[in-house]
Parts: sequence; structure tokens; C-alpha cells
Amino acid sequence: MDFLDEPFPDVGTYEDFHTIDWLREKSRDTDRHRKITSKSKESIWEFVKSLLDAWSGWVVMLLIGLLSGTLAGVIDLAVDWMTDLKEGVCLSAFWYSHEQCCWTSNETTFDNRDKCPQWQTWSELMTGHTQGAGGYLLNYFLYIVWALFFSFLAVSLVRVFAPYACGSGIPEIKTILSGFIIRGYLGKWTLLIKTVTLVLAVSSGLSLGKEGPLVHVACCCGNLFCSLFSKYSKNEGKRREVLSAAAAAGVSVAFGAPIGGVLFSLEEVSYYFPLKTLWRSFFAALVAAFTLRSINPFGNSRLVLFYVEYHTPWYMAELVPFILLGVFGGLWGTLFIRGKYPVLEVIVVTGITAILAFPNPYTRRSTSELISELFNDCGALESSQLCDYVNDPNMTRPLDDIPDRPAGPGVYTALWQLALALIFKIIITIFTFGMKIPSGLFIPSMAVGAIAGRIVGIAVEQMAYHHHDWIIFKNWCRPGADCVTPGLYAMVGAAACLGGVTRMTVSLVVIMFELTGGLEYIVPLMAAAVTSKWVADAFGKEGIYEAHIQLNGYPFLDVKDEFTHRTLATDVMRPRRGEPPLAVLTQDSTTVEDVEALIKETDYNGFPVVVSRESERLIGFVQRRDLILAIKNARQKQDGVVSNSVVYFTEDAPQLPASNPQPLKLRRILNLSPFTVTDHTPMETVVDIFRKLGLRQCLVTRSGRLLGIITKKDVLRHMAQMMNQDPESIMFN
Amino acid sequence: MDFLDEPFPDVGTYEDFHTIDWLREKSRDTDRHRKITSKSKESIWEFVKSLLDAWSGWVVMLLIGLLSGTLAGVIDLAVDWMTDLKEGVCLSAFWYSHEQCCWTSNETTFDNRDKCPQWQTWSELMTGHTQGAGGYLLNYFLYIVWALFFSFLAVSLVRVFAPYACGSGIPEIKTILSGFIIRGYLGKWTLLIKTVTLVLAVSSGLSLGKEGPLVHVACCCGNLFCSLFSKYSKNEGKRREVLSAAAAAGVSVAFGAPIGGVLFSLEEVSYYFPLKTLWRSFFAALVAAFTLRSINPFGNSRLVLFYVEYHTPWYMAELVPFILLGVFGGLWGTLFIRGKYPVLEVIVVTGITAILAFPNPYTRRSTSELISELFNDCGALESSQLCDYVNDPNMTRPLDDIPDRPAGPGVYTALWQLALALIFKIIITIFTFGMKIPSGLFIPSMAVGAIAGRIVGIAVEQMAYHHHDWIIFKNWCRPGADCVTPGLYAMVGAAACLGGVTRMTVSLVVIMFELTGGLEYIVPLMAAAVTSKWVADAFGKEGIYEAHIQLNGYPFLDVKDEFTHRTLATDVMRPRRGEPPLAVLTQDSTTVEDVEALIKETDYNGFPVVVSRESERLIGFVQRRDLILAIKNARQKQDGVVSNSVVYFTEDAPQLPASNPQPLKLRRILNLSPFTVTDHTPMETVVDIFRKLGLRQCLVTRSGRLLGIITKKDVLRHMAQMMNQDPESIMFN
Repeated sequence: MDFLDEPFPDVGTYEDFHTIDWLREKSRDTDRHRKITSKSKESIWEFVKSLLDAWSGWVVMLLIGLLSGTLAGVIDLAVDWMTDLKEGVCLSAFWYSHEQCCWTSNETTFDNRDKCPQWQTWSELMTGHTQGAGGYLLNYFLYIVWALFFSFLAVSLVRVFAPYACGSGIPEIKTILSGFIIRGYLGKWTLLIKTVTLVLAVSSGLSLGKEGPLVHVACCCGNLFCSLFSKYSKNEGKRREVLSAAAAAGVSVAFGAPIGGVLFSLEEVSYYFPLKTLWRSFFAALVAAFTLRSINPFGNSRLVLFYVEYHTPWYMAELVPFILLGVFGGLWGTLFIRGKYPVLEVIVVTGITAILAFPNPYTRRSTSELISELFNDCGALESSQLCDYVNDPNMTRPLDDIPDRPAGPGVYTALWQLALALIFKIIITIFTFGMKIPSGLFIPSMAVGAIAGRIVGIAVEQMAYHHHDWIIFKNWCRPGADCVTPGLYAMVGAAACLGGVTRMTVSLVVIMFELTGGLEYIVPLMAAAVTSKWVADAFGKEGIYEAHIQLNGYPFLDVKDEFTHRTLATDVMRPRRGEPPLAVLTQDSTTVEDVEALIKETDYNGFPVVVSRESERLIGFVQRRDLILAIKNARQKQDGVVSNSVVYFTEDAPQLPASNPQPLKLRRILNLSPFTVTDHTPMETVVDIFRKLGLRQCLVTRSGRLLGIITKKDVLRHMAQMMNQDPESIMFN
Repeated sequence: MDFLDEPFPDVGTYEDFHTIDWLREKSRDTDRHRKITSKSKESIWEFVKSLLDAWSGWVVMLLIGLLSGTLAGVIDLAVDWMTDLKEGVCLSAFWYSHEQCCWTSNETTFDNRDKCPQWQTWSELMTGHTQGAGGYLLNYFLYIVWALFFSFLAVSLVRVFAPYACGSGIPEIKTILSGFIIRGYLGKWTLLIKTVTLVLAVSSGLSLGKEGPLVHVACCCGNLFCSLFSKYSKNEGKRREVLSAAAAAGVSVAFGAPIGGVLFSLEEVSYYFPLKTLWRSFFAALVAAFTLRSINPFGNSRLVLFYVEYHTPWYMAELVPFILLGVFGGLWGTLFIRGKYPVLEVIVVTGITAILAFPNPYTRRSTSELISELFNDCGALESSQLCDYVNDPNMTRPLDDIPDRPAGPGVYTALWQLALALIFKIIITIFTFGMKIPSGLFIPSMAVGAIAGRIVGIAVEQMAYHHHDWIIFKNWCRPGADCVTPGLYAMVGAAACLGGVTRMTVSLVVIMFELTGGLEYIVPLMAAAVTSKWVADAFGKEGIYEAHIQLNGYPFLDVKDEFTHRTLATDVMRPRRGEPPLAVLTQDSTTVEDVEALIKETDYNGFPVVVSRESERLIGFVQRRDLILAIKNARQKQDGVVSNSVVYFTEDAPQLPASNPQPLKLRRILNLSPFTVTDHTPMETVVDIFRKLGLRQCLVTRSGRLLGIITKKDVLRHMAQMMNQDPESIMFN
């Protein structure tokens, strides 16, 4: 008789832009797991199936690692090629980038690694001239044309096919991981379009990075592979475990830093991160990193994006410039988040970027190449302009132990160009941010910091060389000693700016540590990261992701915000005083009509069920969506259910005379263990419960009587309200 | 009138061997914080005080880092000296260890680094002879005497002054961090005695390590510094945040691995680990590591315990022996935990250890030196017996690129000695474990794994050299190539054994990664760690710490155990069917006498308060301890409170005629927001709530009526019961 013994479709699913119920998802997964375990004893086949089910998590991780590593490699190769395409083409094989083209050439000498006959700039190819103003202008013009073409293509593809592909995606992923549903955000189309447009956007020379979007790409991969296993595709909670691991894989391939990736996922992105996920994330991150390495897009067998090796320790006194760089990074973070610039037309920004970037060698090249050069320590064989120091001809020291030397003319030229590049990068990045194309902030922020750091580093180095008798230098910088490493300053600056924007701490230091591979330099990095976080926090509490989440109004309950006000559940629950009473259902005296009227009149996500309106004793909670589906289903399929049928939430419906309409029994969709708190519960406890248990709503009772309801949105609204009332209170957290 | 407006002493504290209430601690801290914030606006002095309060967390971290780093350095130096004291003495300065003694000597040549006239063995000093059987026997005898003396001193000190100082302390620290109170476990005496006896125990040559106990020492430091700030000393929840960070600092100095330390604390030890703690732990771990480095106990300026540098990559085919080592490690872990040996007399084990250890050079030296040698790659300048390969005289290769060579006689001797050492270590470690002295398992486990690994490594290396035409070697091991690094095998073996015993995963790999400093070797380490965990888990689910916790019967709710049974709250709550009804208090009809009788008759930790026995509507929950204190206090200080005074938990007590005894108002000690669940709540949700919110007890209601109570112990008992009923169900987690 009770048709509800067979669940009907869609019960227990969620609508778009709604919040999931973590407890319910968890309990559903346990049910599924229990079923498989008990079945596994029945036959060998079921046992094998249960084993496969147990292993599916690892399989998904492997697949995520493989695909996101491959995609990262492909993106790297494509960006390399297309970035160079703006300047010229390889005649021997047009799909080679400049570097690859000259590798294969036999005529390349070590000093002129970049010059080979196979590689021709556009002016060489078209006019045959390699020199002269005409050639320069033609190259300049074509550089702009290519940039405009790439960015136009990118923005058009995003607009037409996948609007969700724009931005870095990390704020939305944070929101999704916290339990929000945004359908299509991690879909196949988004994956495809984001990958393609990311290549186009980066190649166009805009001041944006691929690192943030790679996290989105990896999460799309994760979502894709979830659909292979019903364990993950049908359970929003389990799916989020996979997505957390995918985010780790994304950062892992972005920086070649698997441990840093896992910590980034733990610290910045994830919401629910059990230890099991930690281990699996680590696996996915490693597979991704090694897949990327075997593709070897940079041609140097290195795992990391910027490999650096320094030979000199740092000295206590250097902490002063490092902390100053931290302050700079913190300011950069604030500046950035405060800026509310309109979404400017992509084409205009690309055009301006290209026009301004081409003449300066430090802005013309790709940003990651720039950072790489800035991080580098000047060895003896370095041919870069930044390493144009005046050498002592009598020097007979080994190659990796070069003392501080006076700067040559190249270094001074480089300093000017870097200063201009710094101003350009700062301004253009602020305008680039927020455009409707895939864009990350990591690399531009790091570039700004690295430029500032290198400038400071060279300044300190030259000061130490020319004034080694000053008290501050006397102790650690004798003449002929190698005491200042400008590359380290660049790295510290990069860390500071990245920290200022994202407010990462541990994961930032670990990522930078994985780049240098030495614990030596962890203290400068920490000092800069801490300073930049404090400075940025002093100006505005939230990082770029939280700011973005707030701007979009996503219901995100941040684990980092502490709630320290003295309000009670009764102050937050609804109905407030003077408001109409809470919309409730009774367990055995509401008719189908009443229920339908209630659904029509209100837009609540669910309704408490009580024994009777007089006693107000709570029985359970029923979801609006389930109620609608159940009534619709019953009206269609169950004979005798009419508008004045009584809805029963009790265990047994009474035997009614045949003249009465058939009752509708809905106990199956009733949640018999709704979460309750008393009206005297402090709001900080309520916030804690919402956060830790991932609740959607919570009922408020007083001595057993139902008084009201608190939803996640009520909590968020209350927190925002209290914060505005007393903004100082958060200063001392 | 209402004396309870002034809180009386000890309200809200806990008794020994009781569990804390995390929610209450958190809420108390918020109250304190709120008070300071509101006061800070009153005067400059209060503002400065509030700033100091906000910074006290960092100050505590700094102090913990400094003290635990210093203690670790002192322990290292003392162990070095006392280990060598068993063999001889430095004549120029008796407080020098063998190595330090010969450093200062000018007569030491590079080849005979260990020989210098200042250092004399006991037989040299006493008889003047350096050779001969008599001298050997005298040295042997004195070695045993010293060992017995050290271990006797250690066990006596522990017995008399600090029984809590024995073992590694990690299981107890896990329990304490989960919210249990063990008074004195982290006290000053424990700190002092543990530090001293740790040195004695390690120096006595017993098969135990200092790494685990160092975590205990660091936590004692953390507890010590907590007492400086009322913020931490008066709040058990905040104190545990500090202790979590201290555990990270402990591992950081034990291995020189700050990141690994933080992850160890997160993965293995901690219970409540908010992101703020992550960042602070990292700071404490770094300070500790750098303090240790500036003390420089190993004299090599290295941060890490075992610094290794390998020059050769590993090859896919090598994964087979690596996984075999993983299996070995897993078996070692099982063997270990299964063994239930009685607490043997420390003296006997020390005697046997010394007698067996002296003749074999690999067991005579300290275990960490042994591991260090086993990890080492044989360079050209290596004089160790393990590196006695037959060199090709015509070789003109650079020093760090030595091809595989045939083993010389020294290597074969070493192999035999290593095999004997392996058997000895396995047996003696099992007997050493559980003795009443400070002892860690990390180093002995790593030694067992490293010996096994090195043996396997040399075997593979020689096989590859002599049979490089075999298919498996053909592809990657041409003659003259450097293809097998036996040191890497030792490291993989050590990781496998450590993983088998502790079941660490991410933190293990990260610690090993920090030792090698290269991502290159992370895959072999992961493969071994995963294999050993799976093998060990297949034989017994829990690691050494969990086993120890269970053995001691601590109420520890492991985050890693998943509860997947279908029981409901109603199955677990008490009273069960047939049992007497729940002991409750009514809000306005219980007399002081009744309450005292209830306290006397029952031993519950607290009592629910209801409106009346008929309605069973829950008002709140009152702690037994608070109730006892309040009544005692009232009887002493409040006039008119007698045995038949009525106890009121309501907001206002009614005005009674003067003839009636004075009422006792106890609303102040009533918790108005007790945690409730309905009787239909699945136990998995209840377990989740207990775990995530750190509850002590939870009340069970049905439609507003109080039905029963579930305590943490009920939950643990139920989990153990379900596990025994259906042990297979956990296999697929």
C-alpha cells in the first residue's frame, strides 16, 4: 500500500544554487557502503564489486593526476608556442617554439642560444631585414595584432560557450566545496573552453597567470571522473572530497609543488578535509606532478616552475629589507582588493598591454620567464643583462662562489627597465583582474613582487659592495665575499605579494620552499609572508577569494572568521517578535490542500513537523523539494489522494472509514533527527555547529517546545551585521 | 542576596582522568576575549594589555621553540658524550665526545679521523696497551658496566620521581589532546626527569630512540609556558592548541623536519587543529629547528638528522624491491603490535643488549650513527667498510659520479655483520619496548628498516653489476653506469618500517622528503609507505599509538575510525529498557537533601534538569562537580540553606513565607544549552557530533521529552561492541 517504500526519483537531490546537507550526504554514503558490504558476502562477484568500490577513490585520484598533469603540460607547450608566435615563427617546423626551434638547430652557439637561422621574426620573414626601425615597427605591429586576435578569440569563446570559464575560479570552488551547488561550473564544457581560452589569454600577453585557472581545470577533471563512479556522482559530500584532492593536484602542477598543493587545498580551498582526503590528495598531487614532468614542457626535467639554487646563506641584517618587502606585498594585496574597477573591455586592455609591453624586454617576454630570470642567481656563465657585473680579471674562484661585484652598465639599464616594468605591471594587473577571461592572480602578483625584490636586492648588494665599511655590513660582508643574493630578494618579494593577495601562510611558505628545496631560506620567506599578511589584514580582513565570494553573495561560512559576540540563538532565529508564527506542519491534521497552500505562500526550504499546534513538540523536519515531489507523485500514481486527504507523518495512519479520502503517508521523507538547539545557546556555539557539521538549518526549542528556525543564511546575515556594528572586535583574533 | 553572582572557586574546572567539554572551554575563551576587547577601549594601559594578550600565542610559540630546540641540542650533546664514555674518555677535556676530542687534535689525519692520542679507550688508559685480547675484554666489560649503570640510574629516577616519564608519551599526548585530563603528565618534574633519563636510556645503548620522547619533552615545555599566561593556563581548550603546536616542534627537532613536524601533529597527534594552530605550529617548529641548528650538536651545520645526497635517479624496475621493503615494514609493524611481552627488567635487557651489541661494529655504535651510515651513498672518499668496493684504477670520472663497482671483501664482511645486527635489533627492540624508561620507537624501527634496505640494496647493486645482460637490468644499467644506490634502499626500508609501526602516511613521506630534500625520491618512499600501511592494516587495523591507548583504556574517540553501523541513538542511550529511570533534577521541586542523596547514590558526571517529572521537558544540564561545590559553598556561607531548602533552577524563585527554609538558587551553574539529539538520530551522526564538537555527553529526546543520555564512554563502548560483532565491516574503509 505504501508506495513510498519505493523511493521516487530525485528525492534527496538539490536544486541549483542551494546548499547541501553534509550530514545527510554522509549518512547516505554510509547506507550505500553498508549495502555493498553486506552484499559482498553473497557471492564472489559481489565481493569483487565491493573491492572495486573500495578502490574507486584511488582510481579517481590516479585519473585526476594523469589528466590534470597532461592538461597542464599541453597548456604549457601551447602557451610557449603561441607566445613566441607573436614574435616570429620556426621555419623548420612551425609548431616549435623559439627555444625548441633553436635546440634542434646545429648552428646555435652557447653564447647565442636565442639566435638560430630557423627562427625568424615576422619582419625577417616578410621583408628579409633583421635590423632597422621598419622591421622593429612591423614586429611591434604584428605583436599587437596577434595579442588582440588571441584575446578576442578567448573572450568570445568564453561569452558564447562557457561563461563560467572566466576568472580564476578559486572563489567559486571554495564556495562549491563548502557545500553550495553551482551546476555546470565544473562541467565538461567549462573544462574544454577554460583550457583553450586559458592558453589564448596567457599567450595574448595580458598580465594574468595560468596557476589559478589550473586549479579550476583540475577540479573540472575531478568532477568529470566522479561521474564514472556512482559512489561519487550520486553523493555531493563524497564528490567534494574528490574535488578537494583535485584542487591539490591543480596547485601541484601549477607550481610543481605537490606538498604545497595539498596544504593549499587544506588551508585555502577546502571545507571538509578528512585525513583520508589528505592522503589521497597527496597521491593525486604526486601523480599530476610526475605526469607533468614526464611531458617535460620546460625541457629541463625539473618538476618545479622556477628552479633556483642559491649558494650563499642570508644574514640577520637582511631581515630588514625582507620585512620591507613584506610590507610592500601587504600593500599590494590591499590595493588590489580595494580596487573596484569596472569590467573593462578585454580588447582595449590587451591593446594597451601589448603597446606598452613590447618595447620593454622585461614585459615583452612571458611573465613566468621574467620571474624565472629575476629569481636566478648570477652565475659566471650567465649572459643575461641582469648579470652584467664588472668582473675582476684576476679572479680564480670556483664558478659557484662568485663574490659581490660592482654592477656594470647592463645592470643599470636593467634597473631602469625593471622600474618601468614594475609600474606597468601594477597598473595593468589591476585593470586586467575581473575581466571575463580565464585569469589567475598568482603569477602577476609574483612578478610584481619579484621585480620589486630584485631592485631592492641589487640596491642592497651594491650598497654592501661600495660601503662594506658601514657598520651594518662590516660583520658579514667583507670585500671579496659573496654576501647578497639579489635573486633571493626577488623570491622573498614574490612570496610577499602572493601572500598579500591570497593571505596564504603555511602553503605559501611550503610552495616557495619546494621551489628552492632548502630550509635555509625559509625564515626570510616566513618573515615576508607574516609581514605581508599582517599589513594586508590591517587594511582589510579578507583575502581576494573571500572578497570575491562576498561580492557574489555566495553563502560561504568561513572557518577562519571567529564569531565572538554575545548573542544567543533566540536573537537570530525566525520568526522574530512581531512576525507571523513559524510555518509548521502537524503530524496528523494537515490536508494535502493545506500543504500545497503552505508551499505556495512561502519559499522556505523546509518545514518543521510538530505533534500539534498547541503542544509545539517537534517530531521532525521535511524538505520543501521532497514534499513537492511526494505530493506530485502521489496525486499522479496513488488512487484516492485528493486535496482534502490528510497527510500523516506518524508511524501508522489510523484506519479511516471508506468515505473519508485516502490518507497520504509521508513519514519516509520526514527527517526524524533534525538538529535542535535551545534558545539560550550562544550564537558562537551555533556558528561552530553550522561550520563543523555543515548544517543547512537548525531548529530552536525551549523546554521541548519548538520556537523557531535558524538557517545558514540567517547565520551569515547575523555575522555580517555584528561585524558592521563592531568592526574592531575582530582586530585581535 | 544571590551569592552566586560571584563565581566561587573551581567552578568549571575538571577532575583528574575526566574529559573536558570543548564547547564550554571555547565559549569561556570567547567571554574572556570579549571582556578584554571591551576593556581595551577604557584606557591606554588596558589597550596595551589587550595587545599583549593577542600576542601571547606567538610569544608562547617562540618560547616553546627556543626551549625545545635547546633541550634537543643538550640531549644530543649529552648522548654523544655518554655513548662514547662507555668506550673511552678524552684526556684533553673529559666532557668532549670522541669526535669532538679528535676535532681539536692537530695530529688527526683525514684517513684516521677517529684516531687521535687525546682519545683513549678505557683499556689504553688503565693498562697502556692498545691491542690484544686483554684490552678488548676490559673494554667489553666496562662497556657493559657503564650501560648497566646508565640504565639502572634511568629506571630508578623514573620510578622514584616521575612514573609518567616512561615510554614515548605519544599515546598519552594524543589522549590529552583529545580532551582528557591527566594531571602531572606534562608537569615540570616529568619534563626534568624525562630529559635526564632519556639521555641515560639512549646512552646505555638500549634499542630505543629519543624522537618519540622528544615530542613529550616539547609538550611539557608547552605546558610549562602555558602557565605564564592565564589565557592558556585557565582554559583547557586553548592549552591544547598550544600543546598541538608543541608536538610539531618536538618532531621538528627530532628529525630536523619542520614541515613534517607540523603534518605529524596534524595527522597523528592532534584532535582539534584549527588553521590558526597550523600557522603557529609552523612557527614553533621553525624556531625549534633553528635553535637546534644554532646549537649545532652534530657539528655539521645541518638541520636534518640524516642528511643524504644521492646523485642517481631511480628506475621503474626498482619499485619491485621497494615494494618488497614496504611489505617487510608492514610485517614489522604487525609483529610489533601483536607482541604482548611482559615488562622485563630493564637491567636484564640492558645487560643482554650490551653483551650482544659490543662485538658487532654496527650495533655497538649509536643507532642514529648506524642509520646515517646506512643511508649514505658511497662517495670516492668514503672510508667506511660498507664502501669497500673494488675500484677501477683507470677511472677518471668526477667524484660524485661513480659507476657501480664490484663489492670488495669489506662489503661482504659488512653484509654478514648487518644480517646479524638485523636479527639482534628485531628481537631486542621487541623486548625493549614497553619498559619503564623513556623510549621511542622511531629510531629502532628505522634502523631495522635501514639494515634490511641496505642489504637488499647491495644485493640488487651486485646483481646489476654482475648480470647487466639480464633483461631487467639491460635497459637501465649498462656497464660503467651508476644505477643502483644502496643508500636509497636503506632509506626506503626505514620509511617502510616506520610507517608499519606508526601508520603515518603524509607526514612520514614529508619527513623523509625533508631529509633528502629532493622530490626525486618521493615516489619510492610513497610506494613503500603505502605498501607497509596496507600490509600492516590487513593484519590489525590500529597503529602502535592507538593500540597503546586501547590497552590503557583511555577514552579516545579516533577521527580515523569510521562508524558505519545502522544503530540509532535510542540503542545506545541510557537508561536501557528495564533499567531504572534516568536520574534527573526538577527545576523547582527538589530539595538540597534530595540532591545530596542523588549525588551520593550515583556517580554520573552530571544531571539533566527538567520542568517536572511528569512533563519531562528538558531545561538544562548541571555538572556533578559544580553541584557539589555550590551546595557545599551555600551550606557554609549562605544563611538559611538547610537540608530541606528547595533548589531552584528557574530564573526567579518564588517569594516564600519566612517560616519556609531559604531557597537555593542554582541557575548560574545550569547549562541552558545542553546538546540534544532525537532518539531516531543515527549513531554515525551522533559519533560525528561527539567527535567534531568534542562533547562529553548528549541528551536524547523524543518530541520534546527527555528520554535518556549518551556519554562519550557509551559511544566508545558501543563502537567497540559493534566492531567486535562485525570486524569485517571496517575492512573497506
